[in-house]
Amino acid sequence: MNKSRTQVAIIGAGPSGLLLGQLLHKQGISNVILERVTGDYVLGRIRAGILEQGFVNLVREAGVAERMDQEGHVHDGVELCINDQRHRIDLKKLTGGDAVVCYGQTEITLDLMNARKASGQTTVYEAQDVQLHDVKSEQPYVTYTLEGETHRLDCDYIAGCDGFHGVSRQTIPAEVRTEFERVYPFGWLGLLSDTPPVHDELIYSKTDRGFALASQRSSTRSRYYLQVPLTDKVEDWPDDAFWAELKKRLPASVRDKLVTGPSIEKSIAPLRSFVCEPMQYGKLFLVGDAAHIVPPTGAKGLNLAASDVATLYKVMTRVYREGDKDCINQYSDICLRRVWHGERFSWWMTNMMHEYDNLDVNGTDAQTFQRFMESELDYFLNTENGQRVIAEQYVGLPFEDLK
Amino acid sequence: MNKSRTQVAIIGAGPSGLLLGQLLHKQGISNVILERVTGDYVLGRIRAGILEQGFVNLVREAGVAERMDQEGHVHDGVELCINDQRHRIDLKKLTGGDAVVCYGQTEITLDLMNARKASGQTTVYEAQDVQLHDVKSEQPYVTYTLEGETHRLDCDYIAGCDGFHGVSRQTIPAEVRTEFERVYPFGWLGLLSDTPPVHDELIYSKTDRGFALASQRSSTRSRYYLQVPLTDKVEDWPDDAFWAELKKRLPASVRDKLVTGPSIEKSIAPLRSFVCEPMQYGKLFLVGDAAHIVPPTGAKGLNLAASDVATLYKVMTRVYREGDKDCINQYSDICLRRVWHGERFSWWMTNMMHEYDNLDVNGTDAQTFQRFMESELDYFLNTENGQRVIAEQYVGLPFEDLK
Repeated sequence: MNKSRTQVAIIGAGPSGLLLGQLLHKQGISNVILERVTGDYVLGRIRAGILEQGFVNLVREAGVAERMDQEGHVHDGVELCINDQRHRIDLKKLTGGDAVVCYGQTEITLDLMNARKASGQTTVYEAQDVQLHDVKSEQPYVTYTLEGETHRLDCDYIAGCDGFHGVSRQTIPAEVRTEFERVYPFGWLGLLSDTPPVHDELIYSKTDRGFALASQRSSTRSRYYLQVPLTDKVEDWPDDAFWAELKKRLPASVRDKLVTGPSIEKSIAPLRSFVCEPMQYGKLFLVGDAAHIVPPTGAKGLNLAASDVATLYKVMTRVYREGDKDCINQYSDICLRRVWHGERFSWWMTNMMHEYDNLDVNGTDAQTFQRFMESELDYFLNTENGQRVIAEQYVGLPFEDLK
Repeated sequence: MNKSRTQVAIIGAGPSGLLLGQLLHKQGISNVILERVTGDYVLGRIRAGILEQGFVNLVREAGVAERMDQEGHVHDGVELCINDQRHRIDLKKLTGGDAVVCYGQTEITLDLMNARKASGQTTVYEAQDVQLHDVKSEQPYVTYTLEGETHRLDCDYIAGCDGFHGVSRQTIPAEVRTEFERVYPFGWLGLLSDTPPVHDELIYSKTDRGFALASQRSSTRSRYYLQVPLTDKVEDWPDDAFWAELKKRLPASVRDKLVTGPSIEKSIAPLRSFVCEPMQYGKLFLVGDAAHIVPPTGAKGLNLAASDVATLYKVMTRVYREGDKDCINQYSDICLRRVWHGERFSWWMTNMMHEYDNLDVNGTDAQTFQRFMESELDYFLNTENGQRVIAEQYVGLPFEDLK
């Protein structure tokens, strides 16, 4: 068996794992990242592109912000539309200066990968059969197989950044974790295309035909979504059909600006709210999607991962710089408070913006629920207090400090 | 058959009917109130006692505010507590000067009854078998039986102020009305006693044992509530058991100030959200509980009735003073917007403050829903923007004008 040792073993080379690795490295804390697939595969994942200020700050602290600061677009506002009625939430004005940055997750990941390579830290791609051992002990370790050979990585701590389907969460015995879940009665059909975005800010559009989102990755790459029944297949939606339906779901004053083109990627994703409690077990810390999933309405997924990273970074820094090992027990509670805020915000935005009529809404019957949500939008979009509540959460609640 | 005629026939002599009658009278619009039960029976109903500014203004406009202004207590704040953690919502500060007035519904009703008697207007008590006729025509009329004799009251318009179980809503054919409903999986056990209130403002208390409300009618009369299972009976709750349980559900810093005493009234009420759309049909207008019911959390029931009264008063004034008969078609839309705001607020407060664990929560499974609600409270009680949203709605959104 090949043996090696590091201070922090990081499972997963997505943006969370890479960002954490970079931050730890800057504090002189050694770390190794184990990733099940190839780097190209990781980069091929199509994900969100709206970064909260807290995320942006963290990337800057990691020293990997150069391209993001050059190419990212600051969005001072976001639109929530109801049929043809447009409501702009002026993020900057309502929050007293905050905004979000539009910069694709793929780009962040690439920047972090390059920085990691340049710094000479170890990332093991295609690490198969990763297993976490003795995480409750003082000597946890990770085993994996690489090109048929078994490896053992000893470490002090393990960061589980391996996503919803990863091994990390499953390592916590079922009897000590509680999983909270909500699956929504519809999915999102997403289309990526090399076309200029229909609008310079995001448009969340609630219509009688269902929800649509006009999003973007850059000034030449657009990402659009349509609410679809869970029974729909991608094959049911040739590009022409997608564009035709999207047009019908955009406000009249925007519709004619839509530039269509061939899809680069098209897929249907279910919408899920999920939280695992606690987020720590012994020397294992769950980070990001490994512990929680949000529906994409409100763009909180990557941003919640970032606040976990920020917290774990603070914890590890205190452990190694101040020798305070007890502070690791703060991790779960600090993370979960903000996680639930993001979960609640995403759930709320999802509830408000989607069409539930004729669907099996879970709860209050669909038509009553729909009226509550219409009134919710009426209040929150048409009062200044309501708009502030949307804006403050959309730009991201502050990160919490350790005690 | 005994025949008579008035301009506006008002069905129901509760606070809505009486307040409307008084306001119309002041504009010189004749009206007759028909009430199924006796005046004493009406006064015996135990109801809410928190009046929004809009309600207070309306009572003043009706010229019946003298005793309310003398004896009512202005509440500048309200407390929302989570176990022993107390959060005061400073209504006055957060809204820039608004507050609510604590003055029992029974007292308002008595003041309005006395004013009506003094003005010589007709109120027919114990009017049996009230029926509304030809409400879509230009000659609507109402029939009823009094002491065995049939009476016919011709009128221009009919105001249905006869509550949830009244005949008015049922007069609208089922095929033209839509009813929205949510029944909650718990009830409120209420106890009225001649004891000084435990606190000078209302306390809404969410605890692991369930919700409690410490409310009041005056400085010597308290009204307390406990969340109980729908299967509980009043007989299960002797006074001692009520007080013992209430103590456990009040924050520790308040608990010992509780003064107990014999109950004057004790009853269990189910919690319901209900809205009938539209609220108008021909010459018939539904007002208050006849069209909508809210759960009592947030004290919106009587206050929503007041905004209906305000709107109908404006409509009738314009009809009779300006001869604009078309304006009656604005009634339903104007009322419903504010009604849904009150429905949503009451639903939200009910959802946040009650214990759903182990109960059949409608929707998202109970434990996930509970976490969303805990996060909702965490956000709305601990941010200034969140507190403003509670305060603005608790004191009451503004009444809307006619177009």
